[in-house]
Amino acid sequence: MIPRSTVARLPLYLRALEEIAADGVTTTSSGELAAIAGVGPAQLRRDLASLGSHGVRGVGYDVAHLHAQVAAVLGVTADLAVVIVGIGNLGHALANYVAGAGAGEGFRVVALLDTGAVVGTTVAGLVVEHADALEAVVEREAARIAVLATPADVAQEVCDRLVAAGVTAVLSFVPRVLQTPDGVDVRSVDLARELQILAFHEQRKARGAPTTTAPPE
Amino acid sequence: MIPRSTVARLPLYLRALEEIAADGVTTTSSGELAAIAGVGPAQLRRDLASLGSHGVRGVGYDVAHLHAQVAAVLGVTADLAVVIVGIGNLGHALANYVAGAGAGEGFRVVALLDTGAVVGTTVAGLVVEHADALEAVVEREAARIAVLATPADVAQEVCDRLVAAGVTAVLSFVPRVLQTPDGVDVRSVDLARELQILAFHEQRKARGAPTTTAPPE
Repeated sequence: MIPRSTVARLPLYLRALEEIAADGVTTTSSGELAAIAGVGPAQLRRDLASLGSHGVRGVGYDVAHLHAQVAAVLGVTADLAVVIVGIGNLGHALANYVAGAGAGEGFRVVALLDTGAVVGTTVAGLVVEHADALEAVVEREAARIAVLATPADVAQEVCDRLVAAGVTAVLSFVPRVLQTPDGVDVRSVDLARELQILAFHEQRKARGAPTTTAPPE
Repeated sequence: MIPRSTVARLPLYLRALEEIAADGVTTTSSGELAAIAGVGPAQLRRDLASLGSHGVRGVGYDVAHLHAQVAAVLGVTADLAVVIVGIGNLGHALANYVAGAGAGEGFRVVALLDTGAVVGTTVAGLVVEHADALEAVVEREAARIAVLATPADVAQEVCDRLVAAGVTAVLSFVPRVLQTPDGVDVRSVDLARELQILAFHEQRKARGAPTTTAPPE
């Protein structure tokens, strides 16, 4: 089994390999790969070894082979159906981002859901459907991944309905802690929190005080 | 000094307190606050104690007082000027989000910068300015916080220019590791990475295999 902390770094390696491949380079070193990914070389070697990938001494890693291996471990070689719920400004942007392969080739936006005036309009090439049909849409598309960008006060209810309909992975942009049963993975992106953490450090810098006692997370 | 991990939880407490206050409640317990914030009660008590806030036995915490205290520690009582660079779909959404107080009252979007056709148009109540004027805009607004939503290939250059102009905190949505000097805080939101981590877990679940060896981060 692969440690969860390693899994969280694999997307960085995948992107670094894509950057290297884009330059036409076919072999890379752990040092180069680590620098582009922003991790330490020893960490990178341990992570790749846990996937069964060992560089060849004096040669390094084969870029295409390693890319295929990391992509396969991540499961992004699959064509994963993604439903986005809440097509406000942020949901709209996310739809265009994922549909435009901003998140890589492994994801396909299959449905957009909302309850407002945006229903019936076309966003990122899809007609926005009414969230009343959420269960039917999730079943129709066999979607297991949902992106949640609804108002906070309906997020838990929408999340419950998604999970009941078969969704097992939720990427939430809602500033609210979501309750989900075991077996459902939730990752949360909290923009307000990120800005507030920066504000804390700004304030301390303005006072000339050290900001925290520990190294960066 | 406040541990960095505590700082990262303060925005959760701030939001929980706002939810409680919105219901007209004036006193809260560590248990209630912890449940809404999604942390353990003992953790919450330790965190608040590190700010010098101790609940009163049998009474709990005064909601308004604790909110004011957490907000002051975070520095979000200040009116912090935020510059957003890169007004594509995501930058557009972020501008509306921050301008609409989605990140709380402590932030004010003061300028939007881009190089494309969006220059000269009005977004979130501001006319988008040309990124050629980046240094002049940062100086004019005395902005210390920038949100970066540019294409990846120009992100480092834009970041360097922001830092040289006086920015000391960057919230980056660019899928690229940014190099910054000491004293500049960078927080990174990587949408592709979040989706890829979910994809990994989806794939493991589809195979009926346990996904990782460690508890959630």
